[in-house]
Amino acid sequence: METKNIGLRGIEIADTRISNIDGKKGKLIYRGFDILDLTKNSTFEETAYLLLYDRLPNKQQLDEFKAKLIDARYVPKQMQKNMGNWRKDADPMDMLQAFVAALAGYFDEEFADKESSYDRAINLIAKVPTIIASWHRIRNGLKIIEPDPSLSHAANFLYMMFGERPDPEVEKIFDVCLILHAEHTFNASTFTARQVASTRAHMYSASSAAIGALSGELHGGANTEVMKMLSEIGKIEKVEPWIKEKISKGYRIMGMGHAVYKTYDPRAQVLKELSRKLAEKTKEPWYGITEKVETTTISEMKLQKGIDIYPNVDLYSASIYYMLKIPVDLNTPIFAISRVVGWAAHIIEEKFAEAAPKPALYRPKAVYVGKYCGPEGCEYKTLDLRK
Amino acid sequence: METKNIGLRGIEIADTRISNIDGKKGKLIYRGFDILDLTKNSTFEETAYLLLYDRLPNKQQLDEFKAKLIDARYVPKQMQKNMGNWRKDADPMDMLQAFVAALAGYFDEEFADKESSYDRAINLIAKVPTIIASWHRIRNGLKIIEPDPSLSHAANFLYMMFGERPDPEVEKIFDVCLILHAEHTFNASTFTARQVASTRAHMYSASSAAIGALSGELHGGANTEVMKMLSEIGKIEKVEPWIKEKISKGYRIMGMGHAVYKTYDPRAQVLKELSRKLAEKTKEPWYGITEKVETTTISEMKLQKGIDIYPNVDLYSASIYYMLKIPVDLNTPIFAISRVVGWAAHIIEEKFAEAAPKPALYRPKAVYVGKYCGPEGCEYKTLDLRK
Repeated sequence: METKNIGLRGIEIADTRISNIDGKKGKLIYRGFDILDLTKNSTFEETAYLLLYDRLPNKQQLDEFKAKLIDARYVPKQMQKNMGNWRKDADPMDMLQAFVAALAGYFDEEFADKESSYDRAINLIAKVPTIIASWHRIRNGLKIIEPDPSLSHAANFLYMMFGERPDPEVEKIFDVCLILHAEHTFNASTFTARQVASTRAHMYSASSAAIGALSGELHGGANTEVMKMLSEIGKIEKVEPWIKEKISKGYRIMGMGHAVYKTYDPRAQVLKELSRKLAEKTKEPWYGITEKVETTTISEMKLQKGIDIYPNVDLYSASIYYMLKIPVDLNTPIFAISRVVGWAAHIIEEKFAEAAPKPALYRPKAVYVGKYCGPEGCEYKTLDLRK
Repeated sequence: METKNIGLRGIEIADTRISNIDGKKGKLIYRGFDILDLTKNSTFEETAYLLLYDRLPNKQQLDEFKAKLIDARYVPKQMQKNMGNWRKDADPMDMLQAFVAALAGYFDEEFADKESSYDRAINLIAKVPTIIASWHRIRNGLKIIEPDPSLSHAANFLYMMFGERPDPEVEKIFDVCLILHAEHTFNASTFTARQVASTRAHMYSASSAAIGALSGELHGGANTEVMKMLSEIGKIEKVEPWIKEKISKGYRIMGMGHAVYKTYDPRAQVLKELSRKLAEKTKEPWYGITEKVETTTISEMKLQKGIDIYPNVDLYSASIYYMLKIPVDLNTPIFAISRVVGWAAHIIEEKFAEAAPKPALYRPKAVYVGKYCGPEGCEYKTLDLRK
């Protein structure tokens, strides 16, 4: 490798007002506010407003915002019909990427002003859960369930999935999950959204691209991998030998460790408590197994490698979604239900930030290491002379 | 702006064997070969093989490759039917982004090995022209024309668009256009493709994201803007006063100037000659007008601003596509027909390069410049206390 700046790690490329991670202190701040305050006191809708508009809404602003989201939940019937033509075993992230891009074909074009971008953001945030729930019903041969305007964003998604209104405790747990995943500064999908938006592409186009990035197993796919690990382990007595063996063989334990947090990920802290509550309620073993994975990995990594390691956001979200009866392959789409808020905020910031002039788009440099036969290129042989 | 590295200009982020630009000498090299040699001696299919496989094919390799492309041209009937549900005035780039992502829902899943990626690349390169031509027919209420296996990639696209087989001269001109646009190192769309692929997302997902980036008016949209300018000018006598006025008012002239080439863009040189030939054949005024735009801009920029400026790839491609009767809003989709080869090569390189270990994905750093009330965040007021 001859290049520097590999993976762009540590390379500062833009200003943002949207969020900040203090990796040493284990703090995540959305628009100035600690996410722990938001999970305690706010809803997903309030948090979405905060991330989009850079302020917490007052009652009237929040009511208007919620009304717009509720109105925009419906997905064109024709779109749902088109989903029926997909392979039933298609990756739901592929479906989401395609149908979010397709929103541009069903709704009016985005005007180039900031206000229109907000309208598109609301349309998108409202429709992503409906797209996912529709696909869940369709691929299982079930009737699609229309959105219920009396329900919150969190409760309505679970209702469209399962046809039952969740109880308030479950609704709150899922709502907090959505708050926690909504934004995390320049991760791979958010950077993709900004990159596409920097060419002046519109909200749907940039968000669809971000879904593509999130679909990769190294990004959003990680929480799916955690659940696969938990299922493979199966019961609490098997955790210790399983983890010890994996670590001794040099494998990474999914859901443990983070590139930015050098202490306990604050999101993991909240999710751990939610997983514990849900396990109490459902009598399922997944919290216990996950907690044992955490403690065993921490002690074994210290013992075997001398490394301090902590759970990341994926460790406990996996068991929560599983106990909510969400199919494992929808974990990443659910990540998107929440993160689309962060993407939308970043797309608007990228296109309309009132900062000093900046170049039009992100265009990094590559180092050419291929064939070189001088500045005029290699000798070209016509087809008949090639071996 | 507090950040450095704005727009990632000049920041080296990866090695590549695929192409190299010598901006000072005005040279563009694909896999070691000067594009001028390729446009003179090779076809689009040969060039695609070179870009994908890092070598010029021999006769047998080329025949096999062409046969695979021809077999893969067909698009599922159901997909074409779904296009009929879009707004007829939808942006064709939106349609292309959505339907390229949707390929994942109709075809078998990509296995994680390199060979499967090549198969998906061929499927994608073969189908993009069919998707675009299908949409062109559908939105105009015309019958879709099936691919003709006896035709080259270039000729078949024009045939599917218009229902007539192009004469050899027109075919050659369009083929050279495709060769010239196939690859241009880390531009915004290619970098997007690599960014998405770096999370281990698959070929269709990463290419769909790249189409999103290309759709932005600052990237692929530029050649559309050139044709709008030429139409506005309308006749050759109006060029001088129009250009002089725009330059004196500080406007940029579309199709002139490039961030990397500091001399004549080699692609513009070839395209200029093709435009001239096509104008001779069609007796249309667009070459003459474009050439006058070039010379006037060069002399006026020197006179008024003391700046040397040269045409870029968009200046002459606009008139060529117009004389080929291609609707102006398909200029950028046609760019994609060609550039999808470069994207595919970069996606494969990003995922399977045998270079030294590199980080998993691109994750740059943002500088937080938003609200800050200390490391614990700002004071949270509950909804009832907010004004």
